Amino acid sequence: MGISRTQATFSPPVMEARRWLDGVTHPADRPLLNVSQAAPVDPPPAPMRDAMAAIIRDEPEAHLYGPVLGMPELRAEIAARWTTAYGGDVRPDQVAITSGCNQAFAAAISAICTEADEVIIPVPYYFNHRMWLDMAGVTTVPLMVGDDMIPDVNAAAALITDKTRAIALVSPNNPAGVEYPSETLAAFFALARARGIKLIVDETYRDFDSRTGAPHDLFTDPQWDDTLIQLYSFSKAYRLTGHRVGAMISSTDLLAEAEKFLDTVTICPNQLGQRAALWGMQNLDDWLAGERLEILDRRAAIEENAPRIAAKGWKLLGCGAYFAYFAHPFDMPSDVLAQKLVQEASILTLPGTMFMPADNPQGARQIRIAFANIDRAGIRVLFDRLENLAL
Amino acid sequence: MGISRTQATFSPPVMEARRWLDGVTHPADRPLLNVSQAAPVDPPPAPMRDAMAAIIRDEPEAHLYGPVLGMPELRAEIAARWTTAYGGDVRPDQVAITSGCNQAFAAAISAICTEADEVIIPVPYYFNHRMWLDMAGVTTVPLMVGDDMIPDVNAAAALITDKTRAIALVSPNNPAGVEYPSETLAAFFALARARGIKLIVDETYRDFDSRTGAPHDLFTDPQWDDTLIQLYSFSKAYRLTGHRVGAMISSTDLLAEAEKFLDTVTICPNQLGQRAALWGMQNLDDWLAGERLEILDRRAAIEENAPRIAAKGWKLLGCGAYFAYFAHPFDMPSDVLAQKLVQEASILTLPGTMFMPADNPQGARQIRIAFANIDRAGIRVLFDRLENLAL
Repeated sequence: MGISRTQATFSPPVMEARRWLDGVTHPADRPLLNVSQAAPVDPPPAPMRDAMAAIIRDEPEAHLYGPVLGMPELRAEIAARWTTAYGGDVRPDQVAITSGCNQAFAAAISAICTEADEVIIPVPYYFNHRMWLDMAGVTTVPLMVGDDMIPDVNAAAALITDKTRAIALVSPNNPAGVEYPSETLAAFFALARARGIKLIVDETYRDFDSRTGAPHDLFTDPQWDDTLIQLYSFSKAYRLTGHRVGAMISSTDLLAEAEKFLDTVTICPNQLGQRAALWGMQNLDDWLAGERLEILDRRAAIEENAPRIAAKGWKLLGCGAYFAYFAHPFDMPSDVLAQKLVQEASILTLPGTMFMPADNPQGARQIRIAFANIDRAGIRVLFDRLENLAL
Repeated sequence: MGISRTQATFSPPVMEARRWLDGVTHPADRPLLNVSQAAPVDPPPAPMRDAMAAIIRDEPEAHLYGPVLGMPELRAEIAARWTTAYGGDVRPDQVAITSGCNQAFAAAISAICTEADEVIIPVPYYFNHRMWLDMAGVTTVPLMVGDDMIPDVNAAAALITDKTRAIALVSPNNPAGVEYPSETLAAFFALARARGIKLIVDETYRDFDSRTGAPHDLFTDPQWDDTLIQLYSFSKAYRLTGHRVGAMISSTDLLAEAEKFLDTVTICPNQLGQRAALWGMQNLDDWLAGERLEILDRRAAIEENAPRIAAKGWKLLGCGAYFAYFAHPFDMPSDVLAQKLVQEASILTLPGTMFMPADNPQGARQIRIAFANIDRAGIRVLFDRLENLAL
């Protein structure tokens, strides 16, 4: 008997890391610093919670099934905003709402791939992307990045075979934090189009990009939708992680394919979350701008503190959005180091081994710090502990 | 280039049926009777909506990520209630919460099957089950039922091969309405165990079963979890369709496999829906008992009215839970008939063709009426129109 779809992949890394906390007590003067998870730890702002409560009480449709591809008003709002933000033209029927951005990736892959097809992803990768490719029977083709953490388009071109269906990028990147230059995305788009494959761009962390203006000009191509599949999440912008709302922006034909997957796996995105996302886009621009500045200030704090541990052999490989990605100086695999950091420094991180294939030696040297949830004071404490590590 | 996962299956039937309404106007004295969808059309009762609104305002965790397999309190409540309701012993770590019952089916199949495996399902089937098997690369092995709509265990035994991983049943049945006898389920369970495969039992409509007491005794087997995968939905009981909450009850090992799928496809079930389901189980027993009696009364109305159209050649094949399943007397395929019913009688149903393979001649003769949303007066009108059809 063969192994099942799920047996073809690994267990959820975040759940595994959580188990490292079991049975470990932290000294009173050294509370746990959890920099493992890329998620807000506070609820949405009070005005949004009030609006959601009113919807729950007063809007019967918010409790019932809706269209598989999402609320028409939300699809229209995204289309209008994208058209403004990116230039070019995005129509409502090119937008689908999903139960979070992970589901958007799964739907996209299901719409374009079948057994033994190949998808190219930069390494280190976002582990849920790898897990879905494994479970879909699709071969992950790793595209190694150099020390700047930016994938090289010529290296990608050399990996394309007649089984390749897509290249999938994440920018700003998870886990490496780096913001891919507009030129890099344009080059990958041109490569994908020339070779007749799709370019998937996951922009979950877009709202915390340090650059002003559009992060790329892909939507300005009048035929962008013959090649581009863009993914987005409302989880970070409005702290809606528990409500599961994401989006997939692509051609109407591809969304009709994705509709089969979404209908069968969840029937529709949850209705309250969709209404909250819409309310957020209509009411929280100023608030979100403030959130972005706060995250950018934390990023600056990371960059200011990084030299303190550079002297100990740490190297900051990438920094941006929610993440700092380091090479560590210790003579041990990063998954062993991560468990020692819990026990001896009360710091929970995710090791590089979780972001690449098991046999990749780079994984052993790298570590991800999701800094978005700790303020400047917490970041100072984090670096105090890293600087004074004695392993 | 091969076809993609989604291209291996058909478009969502409910969305297709909805399009039949486009451009059709109904006379003022003949409003549309929508008996196509197996879903409540009213929101949850006011006290539940108030409780949900309070959670939104006051409980920060309801907005954040939770465990992949669901809220511990909800898993514990289900385990305790199942233990009481079915006899036997169900532990909290044998319960996973999913984003609706469709997702529970997808997770179960992904945990036990891979490419080119086989799953046996009675025909007519629930179309989303067929769609998921198609998209998972799993071969659907149809088990034809006779006029009583109850699958035969010996017929199933004859279909098992070394590629068979499971038999999947739905009771009370969608689309046929019939409640599978306890003995039928016991026989299928014994067959599955003897052949080393899983028995999936989808009990989405359990709360509207006409029988009192447990509908089967499968959980009383001390080792039930080596064979049984039970699926459940909170959508019908508490009218939570828009919040997406279902459950999968099986072995802890199998749930650890399902966890990989659930993490990658949705990260966690939405948090408000889980809290609403828990509140419902703790507060709405009496209300749900009343809902059940109302649905049972509508079922009785179907059975009382059915003889009126028997004279015209209609035959009631099955009736129960939300559904009446008929053989129709017309010399046309049921998908053509269904569109004529919209245009000439303002009745939206789903044709039998949607519940079986395209080449199956029975599909052409059958039609599903989801009667749960129309009261006795509406059911009388429905049969008036069917009785007077002139096609």
